[in-house]
Amino acid sequence: MNLDDAKRLDAADPLRSLRELFALPEGITYLDGNSLGACPKATPERIQRAVTQEWAQGLIKSWNSAGWIDLPRRLGDRLAPWLGARPGEVLVADSTSINLYKVLHAALQLQQGQRRVIVSERSNFPTDNYIAQSVVRAHGGELVLAETPEDIPALLDERCAVLMLTHVNYRSGRMHDMGLLTRWAQQAGALAVWDLAHSAGIVPVDLLGCAADFAIGCGYKYLNGGPGAPAFVWMHPRHEGQVFQPLTGWLGHAHPFDFDSEYLPAPGIQQYQCGTPPVLAMTGLDTALDVYDAAQQRGGMRALRAKSLALTEAFIAGVDARVPGAEIHTPRDAAARGSQVSLSLPEGVDGYAVMQALIARGVIGDFRAGVPELLRFGFAPLYNSFADVVQGVDALADVVTSGAWNAPEFTSRAKVT
Amino acid sequence: MNLDDAKRLDAADPLRSLRELFALPEGITYLDGNSLGACPKATPERIQRAVTQEWAQGLIKSWNSAGWIDLPRRLGDRLAPWLGARPGEVLVADSTSINLYKVLHAALQLQQGQRRVIVSERSNFPTDNYIAQSVVRAHGGELVLAETPEDIPALLDERCAVLMLTHVNYRSGRMHDMGLLTRWAQQAGALAVWDLAHSAGIVPVDLLGCAADFAIGCGYKYLNGGPGAPAFVWMHPRHEGQVFQPLTGWLGHAHPFDFDSEYLPAPGIQQYQCGTPPVLAMTGLDTALDVYDAAQQRGGMRALRAKSLALTEAFIAGVDARVPGAEIHTPRDAAARGSQVSLSLPEGVDGYAVMQALIARGVIGDFRAGVPELLRFGFAPLYNSFADVVQGVDALADVVTSGAWNAPEFTSRAKVT
Repeated sequence: MNLDDAKRLDAADPLRSLRELFALPEGITYLDGNSLGACPKATPERIQRAVTQEWAQGLIKSWNSAGWIDLPRRLGDRLAPWLGARPGEVLVADSTSINLYKVLHAALQLQQGQRRVIVSERSNFPTDNYIAQSVVRAHGGELVLAETPEDIPALLDERCAVLMLTHVNYRSGRMHDMGLLTRWAQQAGALAVWDLAHSAGIVPVDLLGCAADFAIGCGYKYLNGGPGAPAFVWMHPRHEGQVFQPLTGWLGHAHPFDFDSEYLPAPGIQQYQCGTPPVLAMTGLDTALDVYDAAQQRGGMRALRAKSLALTEAFIAGVDARVPGAEIHTPRDAAARGSQVSLSLPEGVDGYAVMQALIARGVIGDFRAGVPELLRFGFAPLYNSFADVVQGVDALADVVTSGAWNAPEFTSRAKVT
Repeated sequence: MNLDDAKRLDAADPLRSLRELFALPEGITYLDGNSLGACPKATPERIQRAVTQEWAQGLIKSWNSAGWIDLPRRLGDRLAPWLGARPGEVLVADSTSINLYKVLHAALQLQQGQRRVIVSERSNFPTDNYIAQSVVRAHGGELVLAETPEDIPALLDERCAVLMLTHVNYRSGRMHDMGLLTRWAQQAGALAVWDLAHSAGIVPVDLLGCAADFAIGCGYKYLNGGPGAPAFVWMHPRHEGQVFQPLTGWLGHAHPFDFDSEYLPAPGIQQYQCGTPPVLAMTGLDTALDVYDAAQQRGGMRALRAKSLALTEAFIAGVDARVPGAEIHTPRDAAARGSQVSLSLPEGVDGYAVMQALIARGVIGDFRAGVPELLRFGFAPLYNSFADVVQGVDALADVVTSGAWNAPEFTSRAKVT
């Protein structure tokens, strides 16, 4: 695929007009929406209004008059259809890590001490495993990590309380079969907890259809809620009234404004709210969900997924053809692929330096240390185009084959991320 | 004090110019900064820049180039001097409730199961007692609540692991003697945990001087960080390396960007960070702290406290003189008073309706149900004036004595807060 081919595909893309809803910098090919989503054009003005009108002018009254108090539930309702959930089942609150802590405690409490093992993958995003380590420590249990996805089924034994997986792996972009693994876990007597950080708004998710138990996820990746945007949490309604989550803040109380001295959990998902919602951050996510409304009118998840797969497939084909020695670590099987492509480079080529050189040329992906070192390129069908794919492949091929990465300004590792 | 007297006092106020740094609505007397602080004039533009430049243009690079990754520590360093703490000891993160959960678990873990009782007050802000209930449940302990402040010392026995108090009570505005109670708690073998929600930036706090153990507090009250702004957490450096807090998210790891599979807590306060910081909300608090820099140049906490006490004293005197039957529930003793005045009205006068009628006249305080029902008026010396005191007293006296509150638009309780 060359740039002309790409432009023909872009012209035929039913989602092409959505790119106009984002404030992307000139001359940049942004392939890191899996890490931090782009900024919708409507967001600055909407947040400005929240600051200057709702806060500065409305002051304390805005908890009611601007609907601040309803934001966690209202945003949850807006997210629900993208997760295969119903309104009233999703809450937007806190961070992904904190929401995971809530649902893992709830899940272990549901197991009533009969089972205390959480099963996950060693390659899971570290925060998930760190939180799980803390939760099993509190329950006198154990975190057991599969070395490969194929090892998971054998770990679903009579000790297993919870199977906790990130649906799409942050390093490899490999997507688990949520329905199958949920069924296997539940057949073994375990509960299924899904981290949708790399799934929400980008791959089809059907939590109710899979009859999963709990899910959490992130607001600032494909959802474009802004840096550090609040996260979300979902619980299957069959667990309503059965669970206890330990972050018992006042806004998870059944009657928060009665100021009772005893904690009484609110029914359903509301129990997962803890403290006062971060209104400005919530407003960013609220605005970003307007773009999803527009996507819904242009084919919804079916169109997003089709475009996402076409973008990643074209990128993989381009790398195969033009970057000698690059190895693709993301499944070529579309059914097992999220919306990113991860690759390693031949021995002797410094992946970190390659990414710095790409960024210097205006192509932004990211680099992940580990074994192997990976370059990750995320594709966000709301704003990425086939032209982005070609520009990404062109730059990568040139940086690697020319040896341009091998310069002190790229190889020096002073930066944090 | 009449309006002319007030204007003379305002003209002599060394802090008077700070009011100009806030975007207060025309015609409003805002006496609820203890609940939600006012918006600094610089905030809209600063947040706008964070959205349009740092996020939209800088994208993922801004974690380094805009210093996002350092915000939790940098804001903590800015707050530290207002808390009697040193740079490096304070972290800005999550919500007050969540930070309290972290430090209570850390404190109970320090007690190594020898002591499992948390002592607090029944009149503490509910979220504190709810979180404490959850933490003692996890440790097999008990929450014991003093009915009055005078009952506290007797509860500091050999079972007491932690004395957890809000320094300034949210209902009464009564301020505890932090030094004395910390000493008593520690002499009894307990640890002292202080909630500074109604203290930070408004009354003198000397955490190191008192040798307190842990403290947490809120960013959106007197600190003016914006609705739902992130909270803060402090730990005495003597506990460094001794504690475990269970919200073990990746950014509390000693080497978060190594993506290790085992959790290794960062040294010191950094361990209390959990997930990704909410950048836009942090930016609001960062901007608000610039106003504190300006206050520092005009006499700092000494000047703020002197004005705060003068404002609350003048308000109390006005209510005594002009609101028949009103009872002041805030200590008249300046040493025991925070920066709010809480009062109840005579039997038969509906406090809720009185507050609605005041709001309709442009005087905003708040109403708290309970026994007794209280009207609360907060005084923020950064922007409140003596003229505000007179306007507040005038409106309250008129609404109560005229019976204007007794109209359906004020007595109807459809609103949430």
